[in-house]
Amino acid sequence: MTQAVEKIRLFVAPAPRTVADIFSPADLERLHALGEVFIHEDGPVTDEIFEQHAVHAHIIVGQFDMPAERLMRAANLRAIVNVEGNFLPNVDYAQCFRQGVRVLNVSPVFAEPVAEAALGMAIDLARGISHADRRFRNGTEQYGLDANKDAFSLYDAPVGFVGMGDLGRAILPLVAPFRGVVRAFDPWLPPAYIESLGCEPASLDTVLRESQVVFVVAGVTSQNQGFLTRDEFASMRKGGAFILVSRAGVVDFDAMLDAAATGHIRVATDVFPEEPLGPGHRARSIENVLLSPHQAGALDAVLRDIGRRALADIELIARGLPPVMCKIAQPETVGLMRSKPVDKS
Amino acid sequence: MTQAVEKIRLFVAPAPRTVADIFSPADLERLHALGEVFIHEDGPVTDEIFEQHAVHAHIIVGQFDMPAERLMRAANLRAIVNVEGNFLPNVDYAQCFRQGVRVLNVSPVFAEPVAEAALGMAIDLARGISHADRRFRNGTEQYGLDANKDAFSLYDAPVGFVGMGDLGRAILPLVAPFRGVVRAFDPWLPPAYIESLGCEPASLDTVLRESQVVFVVAGVTSQNQGFLTRDEFASMRKGGAFILVSRAGVVDFDAMLDAAATGHIRVATDVFPEEPLGPGHRARSIENVLLSPHQAGALDAVLRDIGRRALADIELIARGLPPVMCKIAQPETVGLMRSKPVDKS
Amino acid sequence: MTQAVEKIRLFVAPAPRTVADIFSPADLERLHALGEVFIHEDGPVTDEIFEQHAVHAHIIVGQFDMPAERLMRAANLRAIVNVEGNFLPNVDYAQCFRQGVRVLNVSPVFAEPVAEAALGMAIDLARGISHADRRFRNGTEQYGLDANKDAFSLYDAPVGFVGMGDLGRAILPLVAPFRGVVRAFDPWLPPAYIESLGCEPASLDTVLRESQVVFVVAGVTSQNQGFLTRDEFASMRKGGAFILVSRAGVVDFDAMLDAAATGHIRVATDVFPEEPLGPGHRARSIENVLLSPHQAGALDAVLRDIGRRALADIELIARGLPPVMCKIAQPETVGLMRSKPVDKS
Amino acid sequence: MTQAVEKIRLFVAPAPRTVADIFSPADLERLHALGEVFIHEDGPVTDEIFEQHAVHAHIIVGQFDMPAERLMRAANLRAIVNVEGNFLPNVDYAQCFRQGVRVLNVSPVFAEPVAEAALGMAIDLARGISHADRRFRNGTEQYGLDANKDAFSLYDAPVGFVGMGDLGRAILPLVAPFRGVVRAFDPWLPPAYIESLGCEPASLDTVLRESQVVFVVAGVTSQNQGFLTRDEFASMRKGGAFILVSRAGVVDFDAMLDAAATGHIRVATDVFPEEPLGPGHRARSIENVLLSPHQAGALDAVLRDIGRRALADIELIARGLPPVMCKIAQPETVGLMRSKPVDKS
Repeated sequence: MTQAVEKIRLFVAPAPRTVADIFSPADLERLHALGEVFIHEDGPVTDEIFEQHAVHAHIIVGQFDMPAERLMRAANLRAIVNVEGNFLPNVDYAQCFRQGVRVLNVSPVFAEPVAEAALGMAIDLARGISHADRRFRNGTEQYGLDANKDAFSLYDAPVGFVGMGDLGRAILPLVAPFRGVVRAFDPWLPPAYIESLGCEPASLDTVLRESQVVFVVAGVTSQNQGFLTRDEFASMRKGGAFILVSRAGVVDFDAMLDAAATGHIRVATDVFPEEPLGPGHRARSIENVLLSPHQAGALDAVLRDIGRRALADIELIARGLPPVMCKIAQPETVGLMRSKPVDKS
Repeated sequence: MTQAVEKIRLFVAPAPRTVADIFSPADLERLHALGEVFIHEDGPVTDEIFEQHAVHAHIIVGQFDMPAERLMRAANLRAIVNVEGNFLPNVDYAQCFRQGVRVLNVSPVFAEPVAEAALGMAIDLARGISHADRRFRNGTEQYGLDANKDAFSLYDAPVGFVGMGDLGRAILPLVAPFRGVVRAFDPWLPPAYIESLGCEPASLDTVLRESQVVFVVAGVTSQNQGFLTRDEFASMRKGGAFILVSRAGVVDFDAMLDAAATGHIRVATDVFPEEPLGPGHRARSIENVLLSPHQAGALDAVLRDIGRRALADIELIARGLPPVMCKIAQPETVGLMRSKPVDKS
Repeated sequence: MTQAVEKIRLFVAPAPRTVADIFSPADLERLHALGEVFIHEDGPVTDEIFEQHAVHAHIIVGQFDMPAERLMRAANLRAIVNVEGNFLPNVDYAQCFRQGVRVLNVSPVFAEPVAEAALGMAIDLARGISHADRRFRNGTEQYGLDANKDAFSLYDAPVGFVGMGDLGRAILPLVAPFRGVVRAFDPWLPPAYIESLGCEPASLDTVLRESQVVFVVAGVTSQNQGFLTRDEFASMRKGGAFILVSRAGVVDFDAMLDAAATGHIRVATDVFPEEPLGPGHRARSIENVLLSPHQAGALDAVLRDIGRRALADIELIARGLPPVMCKIAQPETVGLMRSKPVDKS
Repeated sequence: MTQAVEKIRLFVAPAPRTVADIFSPADLERLHALGEVFIHEDGPVTDEIFEQHAVHAHIIVGQFDMPAERLMRAANLRAIVNVEGNFLPNVDYAQCFRQGVRVLNVSPVFAEPVAEAALGMAIDLARGISHADRRFRNGTEQYGLDANKDAFSLYDAPVGFVGMGDLGRAILPLVAPFRGVVRAFDPWLPPAYIESLGCEPASLDTVLRESQVVFVVAGVTSQNQGFLTRDEFASMRKGGAFILVSRAGVVDFDAMLDAAATGHIRVATDVFPEEPLGPGHRARSIENVLLSPHQAGALDAVLRDIGRRALADIELIARGLPPVMCKIAQPETVGLMRSKPVDKS
């Protein structure tokens, strides 16, 4: 067991965030109360800076390179806390596990804001909200039942999830009052786990074929890049809604746009293969696509939540207790993650 | 007590709906199984038609004139079922109550679809969903935090209701997972009732001042026309969201648009003083207004729900039991209602 | 519509309750604020007292005789509020409906306390709680799995309801977290209504055969006395739990005891054909019966809730609005009720 | 990352359970489908048996000694799965963490059955269920309000938790419908975590002083033995309910009985300092104590759930994925646990 020590040492280099972005004054004060806090915000963490200020730290906050050489020299190190939502490949995770160093990220802070946006997008697709507003603005709206010929309701509609991590679990209570059966496909989770969430475990094929609304919340791994292809879109129900809020890398983006452009499905996407999207990109003018500029998790309030959540786990670790608020890197899977290096959403 | 009789007689004149719109074949069969069913769909119910086909009915389905003269001649009559969402002034309600005739409408069918749309509109206002899509389409979108400067989240945000009838109660479970305190103002309901729904009873003033999101779900009565005026909008939080899904008659529409145009509040409205809205109406171009063409309750699926719900109560009444699925006219309040005569939403 | 008047007149004769039992000082003050309140607590309401103090009342609180003669003389009368949980046969309900007099009782106050007790009894039967405590007290307890050979868990167990009124609906949220399918039989409710509560509508036979736990919450009417007979108990699952919390009159009590005595089912009952039960009654010594002395709804806190609930509706009625907190007598069914005249539970 | 391999090797020595107890035939078949399964049920795992059959295993099921010597020889080992609810001191956890060996137990299977029993005990204490039954059996019952003078209702009553692990979290949904504020004390969890469960984080003192019902669900550690002493019981509300369902070791048992015997509080306990309790132990005759013979988690159905849960994680581990169904030993806390070696509850 990691013992509590008199005064712990923290090295905080939160780039691309800043300390002021993520820690409220009160949270910063609590951070300082834990022991010696060294904050580094001017440029990269060079070997010199590492050697001078980080090598004796008990806890490191940041996402700079942590190869085996640095880790092995950091004899006190208990945890590395990335104040972003991903696990980058610039950390030698195997060495962390050998040394008993916890590696954390703050991805859970994004779950609720993204879930909220995902539900808003789902209702928009189902009920034609932005579509009707657009027609109002160009003077072509219709009223009542005429407005609404293709609309459907989420009530009692079957819902499907591709992936069932933090984000999927945050969406579940939002769709529960609509009473539809909920199916989930997640190859990393056993059926009993998915059942314990009140969902039916299902194959990817079943999720796509049987759901009126499909939420894609799976992250990109080395195993699933582009796994939602033309065939998967073709297998969906005519008029079904497809809401992509995790990573563009899991879909064949062109195939997805085609499926929307032909009217086969409705699509909402918060992510794009390139951001910003090219000025003349055809996605901008497809009627059946709702476009969201990677804003689902981007709220000022979320930044403060990052600090609060990181601080809560840092305080636990300082007391010799296991963290419970952040995402914890798992030896089996951390090497599979394929997020891009910088991700501020 | 109304006894069950061998065969009951129904007179069905569902204009402006049709029998085929609202009753599925199976439901129509069940209707016929109750006894003698006379369907009248060709024009108004003249005195001659009434005398020939309706005067002996136990149950009347429709919204044609029922003055005291007709009612007093209809000695078997137990119930009048309006397959619309309102109680019109062409029925002599006092006489109905004296004779023990139940008067019903099917307004509960609209509660869930309107609640769903209202939540979609609330998330849209909070998170800028249609606004961001609009900017994408004209090539001016921004990404991530930049996209989103004025966004707020419904999570933990205080929610207010003006009115707490069927529609408000259908919205409650949808906003519950967002955890915000919910306040409700309804002058027809005692505080204990509002508390039993998990809401704080509050004055209109408190609801408007303290809520980040305000749902207006109050119907128009002879007592509340235009009661939400310039002063009420001014009392709202800067940046707050105002979602109007009941009747345009409860607000000063111009004052509401002004409050949106100045940026003081965000507005979503499903109802308008005149429908269709004039082609050059300024509402069409205000950024802070989300426009919905009276479509919140207008879904094909709702039509079949009308028939199902009416049938369920008709079957109870035929068996001598009280109705439980439709809205029942109350002697104290039915005279106060001020819906417009024809309302197909 | 009933108009609001300057000052309303109330006649309050709450026997067998007392004003002090049911109204807190603050509630009593609010009652007096409504107008002129005459309280009569000394003996029966004779014709003389009625004529002097009640005949002009707008609202009567109590359960004394209200035959047509009295009603017809009470020209201002809007409502009779019985501060008990039943509708007695000493009121001429038909005349009330003709005159537009609301008749209310406070039965909803009992729903939650009885639901709580019913759940406690269900868990007791399932898990052997009082049985194990009894064995501990006589020194014959066993431990762990040995203690518990016949125990079952409510989790995922099918639950059935006989009746689905206020009380059933109060039990539903308590059993929901146990995730079992819930079936309900109620001949006064249409399937769609039962479905809207998240239950499966079912026949009595199906409820009894398919449920591991059966809650009997149906009141006694002229149509259902003793309808749960030997055959019904025989149809239940071996080892199933039967919880009777409404009225002893709905069951063949001897048959119920026999089904428990043979070990076929487990029984909990809060009601008895005679109370107190005879000193040597065999129910007292059957292992498989949990005995509750008509205490499920009997809590001091409930008395104050009676006053609060009655007051809330009285205030609405005084303002010309429909009551929403109490049970309202329905013309179709009020004549069928068969509660005993005095019922203080 | 742990790679999936062609055929994994399992060594299964489930004493004191048996394979037949915990694995259904279907589950056992799935276990065999994973690779080579060696089952050892005849006596202890001697060094010879270990060397012959376990040393090459990828997964070990059981709770036999695993000192560093054995671990270091088990080069393929990925996980040790104890099919009991505790982490015993006969495993060298530090060595496991160094080698990347997961150590699991199945304690989550007990959470729901114990939660159900805990709720049943809480309602029993509040509403006097077993007490009234006892009086019925000895012919001294009273009826209605008289039966029930000290009863209280869980509705709107403040609830407190000492500890908030798996078991506490399983109780939360069961008490939620009763609407009372819920406070929790858990020194291993940050306030934000407790808030995310819908509870108020509170000190031990506040939990005890402010709660009408206190659930003790904390396990015994080297730091908290006997931490609920005479002072803590004295600080509780008069008439409050204290439900002990974790370990007797966390309380001063005599002080607890005294607090019940004087009538200060009501107590329910599922655990005892010695089991079986001495035949003349005074606990057996205190009116205010509900006695439960360590049966809260002891259900036949739970045994099969042990197998199902262990199997689900074994299948994940076999595929190179992290376990999600069992309790995972944490380096910071596993050394603090003080369960007794054999625990079949």
